[in-house]
Amino acid sequence: MPELSRFLNPRGVAIVGASNDLTRIGGQPIRLLSEFGYPGKVYPVNPKYQEIKGLPCYPDVAAVPQPCDVALIALSAPHVPGVIEQCGKAGIPYALVLSAGFSEVGDAGRSLQSQLVAAAHKAGVRLVGPNCLGIMNLKDNARVGFGGTLQLTTLKPGPLAMVTQSGGFGFGVVAIACYYGLGFNYAISTGNEADLTLLDWLADLLERPEVEIVVAFMEGITDGRRMIEIGERALELGKPILVWKVGNTAIGRQAATSHTARLTAGYELFRAAFRRGGYIEIRDVDDLIDISKVLLGRKLPAGNRVAVLTLSGGAGVLLADRCIEEGLALPRLTAATTEKLSNILVSFASADNPIDATAHGYNDNFASYSKAIREVINDPNIDQLVARAPRGKAARPWAEGLLEVLRDTDKPLVLNWPTAPDDNGDVMAYLEQNGVPCILAPGRSIHAMAAVTEFARKCRAYTRDAGQAFKRVVERMDLDLSAAAGTLGEHRSKQLLARYGIPVVTERLMTPADVDALQSSPFAFPLAVKIESPDVPHKTDAGAVRLNIADLAGLKQAAREVVAAAERFRPGVRIEGVLVQEMASGLEVIVGAVNDAFFGPTVAFGLGGVFTELMKDVTHRFAPFDEATAREMIAEIKGAPLLTGYRGRPALDVEALARTLARVSQFIADHADRIAEIDVNPLFVRPAGQGVVAADALIVLKSDKQ
Amino acid sequence: MPELSRFLNPRGVAIVGASNDLTRIGGQPIRLLSEFGYPGKVYPVNPKYQEIKGLPCYPDVAAVPQPCDVALIALSAPHVPGVIEQCGKAGIPYALVLSAGFSEVGDAGRSLQSQLVAAAHKAGVRLVGPNCLGIMNLKDNARVGFGGTLQLTTLKPGPLAMVTQSGGFGFGVVAIACYYGLGFNYAISTGNEADLTLLDWLADLLERPEVEIVVAFMEGITDGRRMIEIGERALELGKPILVWKVGNTAIGRQAATSHTARLTAGYELFRAAFRRGGYIEIRDVDDLIDISKVLLGRKLPAGNRVAVLTLSGGAGVLLADRCIEEGLALPRLTAATTEKLSNILVSFASADNPIDATAHGYNDNFASYSKAIREVINDPNIDQLVARAPRGKAARPWAEGLLEVLRDTDKPLVLNWPTAPDDNGDVMAYLEQNGVPCILAPGRSIHAMAAVTEFARKCRAYTRDAGQAFKRVVERMDLDLSAAAGTLGEHRSKQLLARYGIPVVTERLMTPADVDALQSSPFAFPLAVKIESPDVPHKTDAGAVRLNIADLAGLKQAAREVVAAAERFRPGVRIEGVLVQEMASGLEVIVGAVNDAFFGPTVAFGLGGVFTELMKDVTHRFAPFDEATAREMIAEIKGAPLLTGYRGRPALDVEALARTLARVSQFIADHADRIAEIDVNPLFVRPAGQGVVAADALIVLKSDKQ
Repeated sequence: MPELSRFLNPRGVAIVGASNDLTRIGGQPIRLLSEFGYPGKVYPVNPKYQEIKGLPCYPDVAAVPQPCDVALIALSAPHVPGVIEQCGKAGIPYALVLSAGFSEVGDAGRSLQSQLVAAAHKAGVRLVGPNCLGIMNLKDNARVGFGGTLQLTTLKPGPLAMVTQSGGFGFGVVAIACYYGLGFNYAISTGNEADLTLLDWLADLLERPEVEIVVAFMEGITDGRRMIEIGERALELGKPILVWKVGNTAIGRQAATSHTARLTAGYELFRAAFRRGGYIEIRDVDDLIDISKVLLGRKLPAGNRVAVLTLSGGAGVLLADRCIEEGLALPRLTAATTEKLSNILVSFASADNPIDATAHGYNDNFASYSKAIREVINDPNIDQLVARAPRGKAARPWAEGLLEVLRDTDKPLVLNWPTAPDDNGDVMAYLEQNGVPCILAPGRSIHAMAAVTEFARKCRAYTRDAGQAFKRVVERMDLDLSAAAGTLGEHRSKQLLARYGIPVVTERLMTPADVDALQSSPFAFPLAVKIESPDVPHKTDAGAVRLNIADLAGLKQAAREVVAAAERFRPGVRIEGVLVQEMASGLEVIVGAVNDAFFGPTVAFGLGGVFTELMKDVTHRFAPFDEATAREMIAEIKGAPLLTGYRGRPALDVEALARTLARVSQFIADHADRIAEIDVNPLFVRPAGQGVVAADALIVLKSDKQ
Repeated sequence: MPELSRFLNPRGVAIVGASNDLTRIGGQPIRLLSEFGYPGKVYPVNPKYQEIKGLPCYPDVAAVPQPCDVALIALSAPHVPGVIEQCGKAGIPYALVLSAGFSEVGDAGRSLQSQLVAAAHKAGVRLVGPNCLGIMNLKDNARVGFGGTLQLTTLKPGPLAMVTQSGGFGFGVVAIACYYGLGFNYAISTGNEADLTLLDWLADLLERPEVEIVVAFMEGITDGRRMIEIGERALELGKPILVWKVGNTAIGRQAATSHTARLTAGYELFRAAFRRGGYIEIRDVDDLIDISKVLLGRKLPAGNRVAVLTLSGGAGVLLADRCIEEGLALPRLTAATTEKLSNILVSFASADNPIDATAHGYNDNFASYSKAIREVINDPNIDQLVARAPRGKAARPWAEGLLEVLRDTDKPLVLNWPTAPDDNGDVMAYLEQNGVPCILAPGRSIHAMAAVTEFARKCRAYTRDAGQAFKRVVERMDLDLSAAAGTLGEHRSKQLLARYGIPVVTERLMTPADVDALQSSPFAFPLAVKIESPDVPHKTDAGAVRLNIADLAGLKQAAREVVAAAERFRPGVRIEGVLVQEMASGLEVIVGAVNDAFFGPTVAFGLGGVFTELMKDVTHRFAPFDEATAREMIAEIKGAPLLTGYRGRPALDVEALARTLARVSQFIADHADRIAEIDVNPLFVRPAGQGVVAADALIVLKSDKQ
């Protein structure tokens, strides 16, 4: 991991292409570094000037005094590679290239960007950009860059950090979040990422003690495995990454490609990676604000059991709905708490969860409401609380009492603000300064609680599992794939899968003549007959499959028919034989594996055909994984009850299915250098104890050995 | 519909139970009516005082001068019915009962509420409340009620109106919305709804010219059909109702019941009603604010085709994603527009949708960005625009130019604010004052556009279909259901459905002895045999069904077995016969009809078993409906491709299915006085041209004729 501290907090910054027009791209940084209290040195570089804004101006970077940690470059694109070389010679380790005109403008720009990368590599200079807005270090008042957001006096330092692939958009989000009370120690616009990428910065920011929440605005990344590792490190540190991923629909992805010239994996793989690591996916500015507020309460809930407390039944109903929708539980309180609440609250209040103190809470200046909160937060059935704040003059003393209640507990509380933010605004400010998140929109408060609850769950699971070694379900096998290429036939594919212990139907590959000469069937009827040919990948569509064959005559007839069908399908077809199989049965599931260009080997699982294709009831994991992960996959599809037993149907062999999923994952992971895709479809799942069996399978190898 | 104008805008208000402590419930209204500019008369009523706050105090309502349109009642509950009678005698037509202690506090309160209703009815007085916060008429400065929100000086009149079943919550929402720039002419807290209900107020507010958007916070209603009618009237007027429905999950509904003692129908029926009429469902305060802002642009889009314009690619990618997710289309621009844009924008800008002018838009003070917006909004492929606003000093002149562009078009534009609201806040205010909605969170702006687009679509469809009479697919038939009760047997159920032209399997009800005496099968094999008995509603579970019977011996054996199974299932079982059926086949679908206590007859449709139960792929409509509506139902389930043709499978008989759905709807609607439920499960759908057939069916009659 590159050391980037001095990039974020430079002792001196050279402004290469400095302008004495302080509104221009080469002038703005001079003004920003002079006027916002930057304690380091500013070195304008431009042979045309002796000085700019009272600062001595240097003819080139070689002339700049040391220490100078960062060269900010605002020259036109063709001049940039040469200056990078000079930076190397001058001992300036970091360059921030604001200049546009590189890969974002087409072929000529791409070539220039390659020159830039080569120059940086040769010079030993690490780059941010080109085509970026710069780096803001609000903690140390170093605003190194240009653009509207950097001029704002309303930006605030604080425990967040932002790294964004879209400078204009991401910096605007920083401005909005600061307006709503959050603070950012750092914000980095990564531009074209010729050198340092969003992931480099994520990894860096995560380790900094002055950063408690990392925010990433992401259009795409190319190293999915590294993103997963960073997510695991986030769990280890208990530090969340709020990730806002765009370019997720076909049309959005197309726009992303034209914008950053960066291809990207499917959204479902990003989501799988986010779910697995310390990422919290956000989808709008509000998510960023709300979730950060809840996180900055600095108490993670120990579980998903929420109590709802209100002074108005309508709000309680709404909050209860939302908790259920967001996967939070609203358990009953213990009998002891309910008993105490019935003594504290008026008789017609609701003393069980959701707890409605009713507007009578107002009658004693919220004394009983405070007591109720104390009882409920200490109830062992409850992990966290959401309460409506009261309003009026008595709210301030109530808030002071609330802080005392909270000092005695590790359980988080989120307050729901019941009125305009300027109604009792001083009370809201007081509470937030003391670590009590106050959220205006009730649905949003629950959404944020659910997001933080899930993050806390993942942190606990990570800590619990951290010591455990990954459990292989099968030894690594050598498979001789060196000579093969392209799509393997069904029989060959299944032979390979069988080596990893994946059960396949009983079958025999025979010549048409051998089938015709049979005196008795090799297996019990009914049978299936299929063509085996590298030229007929979709056998059913080609009419080269016969099922439910009942006798020997039918078998011979079927063999002749599938050969004829293959020959009709493509004249001169290569026929490797006729595949004679036992018919299998059970619940149809699909196990697919893809060696993704960005995320590496992945496994998808779903019920057969319609469920996967129309209902989109599919789940994904990164290979390899063990049986525990496979069981999670099985449990999380909507159709899971069909496997675990449903309305009198017997439970199916979920254990065998889990083992098979894990084996497929280890198969593709062990041979990721050669395998592009695996399709086990259908895999039949039989009743518990009777296993699974692959009735068809296909392996696609990479087109050339890498 | 009751006339309520003087309730909203009274010439005089009597405060019954007036207090000279102006912080109390009987004192607050006096202060509110005195201090906020109410032009009518205020008449405190309390025999203890001569005057309160300089106003003469009257001993009872009989003494109050006329005209006095509203009596606000703040007495303790037991005194209220008597005062209502006096109001009637005194000629005061409306009473607003703030007092609590009625149905919300249990049995004694419920009895008191009945007395109150009886008194009001006898006296000819219309009531709001009891247990409510009152009515705010901000347009005429009449704040008739009590509580924190009514004291706020920040509330503003405007084209919205709110009616809420939760006064505390709903009035708080009004305060929040006013803070974010919206204005409300009216806000009504309906409390226990002893007399006037939320629906009464919805119907009233909708007709008022000074109300452009009605907002409803709803826990439950009992007259679903009226809600549907009001929704249709909203479409006729082109005036939306933003409805925030809570109590939608089991736990939320339970809380709602304890809160308002009001049972309520399932959420899916509410959603079906909202979708059908001029309702826009909202789920949080933000939805209310954003959607209202877009509506107050006062241009409804003619379709769902959106163009996205940005100055930063990242924002364009995000907005494009969200449009697709929200069901909006991002069509290509015409070649002519694309050509013009390539001349207007820099070469590496994206000149097709989403259009990214890139940060180079800043270089000419947005002149080219303005030109681009004009070209795009006039493109015939586009119905509406979302654009990112620029920032900086040139934003104001740009905004002025934008208004000129918008003056020449009927197409709506939503601006996405790229920075904190206080950065160029004056420009935002200028734009919003001139009818250009500015929304901070990009996802929310698209959500609001999608909501308004759907409202506009429904208005157009309503106008188009308004002249067309409802098309019956079957004549109304008399069914002799008078003597029957409870669950009808399968055979009887199917006979009744067949009278409405619903195809059922060929079958014959026979005695066991007749089956045993058969010399040949009545129908072609294979056959099914089932018990017919009112005591065995779940025949399969009782083992009283045999399928795929292949010959006569099997038929006789099956008949004996199902009789034996029924006798084992319940000793002394009433056996009406043995049902001998042809086996049917096709794609299994389910048609269910329920005569809901609140919404009346409804029809549900989905694919068989797992799809309906695990995948929740079900759709609902209110009966009766015609084939066009039935076709909509078929098209909107996720599994629709299985019916319309999917991956080489043939298209099935969608027309016959639509006809059958419409017939079931007309069947239950025609006999809603007697029928509680209908279950046609499975209905087999055959290939196109071959119709549908019900293999099993069940009708449940209401327990007593109503």
